[in-house]
Amino acid sequence: MSTEFQHVEHIGLAVKDLEQAIQTWTLLLNSPPYQRESVESEQVETVFFKTGQTKIELLGATAPTSPIAKFLEKRGEGIHHIAFAVEDIKKEMERLQSCGFRILNETPKVGADNKLICFLHPADMHGVLVELCQERASD
Amino acid sequence: MSTEFQHVEHIGLAVKDLEQAIQTWTLLLNSPPYQRESVESEQVETVFFKTGQTKIELLGATAPTSPIAKFLEKRGEGIHHIAFAVEDIKKEMERLQSCGFRILNETPKVGADNKLICFLHPADMHGVLVELCQERASD
Repeated sequence: MSTEFQHVEHIGLAVKDLEQAIQTWTLLLNSPPYQRESVESEQVETVFFKTGQTKIELLGATAPTSPIAKFLEKRGEGIHHIAFAVEDIKKEMERLQSCGFRILNETPKVGADNKLICFLHPADMHGVLVELCQERASD
Repeated sequence: MSTEFQHVEHIGLAVKDLEQAIQTWTLLLNSPPYQRESVESEQVETVFFKTGQTKIELLGATAPTSPIAKFLEKRGEGIHHIAFAVEDIKKEMERLQSCGFRILNETPKVGADNKLICFLHPADMHGVLVELCQERASD
């Protein structure tokens, strides 16, 4: 398997008002979202648009304790993270840890859109929150 | 011509120390940058990596008056903008203006990597700085 990143799978945007942001991004991309999904473990509601290989993921908080609510409070609306598609997330996590990157979760966790995901510490990435994601095999 | 966005052409990251960020991103992507270019009009030094259809553009300030220096001062290091490839930038600018989006430059300007570019007002985009870019025809 390749140890290079395949492509930018999605860009996550933290928004205050999900319905308003859906309208804005539908106008911008001239195309409606194709999916809406709650991720209860993260207390977020996600809405996905597609452009080329990359999805635009709008992230709205569903509770004041949501990581997105905290982000909005601290930084305001804007770009929250960049996610890269990898073939083998465990292998990439090992490679990156051996290079000195800190991974925020020890083992891959289940994210939106049928993915195994992990996040790198933004302090190691010049302030950028980087996610790796691997498509989950269908059962 | 299509009035839909083609793909995420690049993601621009504001960095304090370009050489250090080059090292970090080379390790992360397991692949070195393929291009380095100064854009004097914007007082930035740019370094490009490629992953799938999308480039990662590191942006370093070359003067204290650079927009990147101002961004770093205000927000710190992090994701600066998302650029979408369009076939016909003028047509897209007209379409978006007719939808009520404000464009920061009236006519397309010449950006890095042989592109015609424009930026949308981030206040219309929920805090996200969006760039449109069109490949320039070779002379």
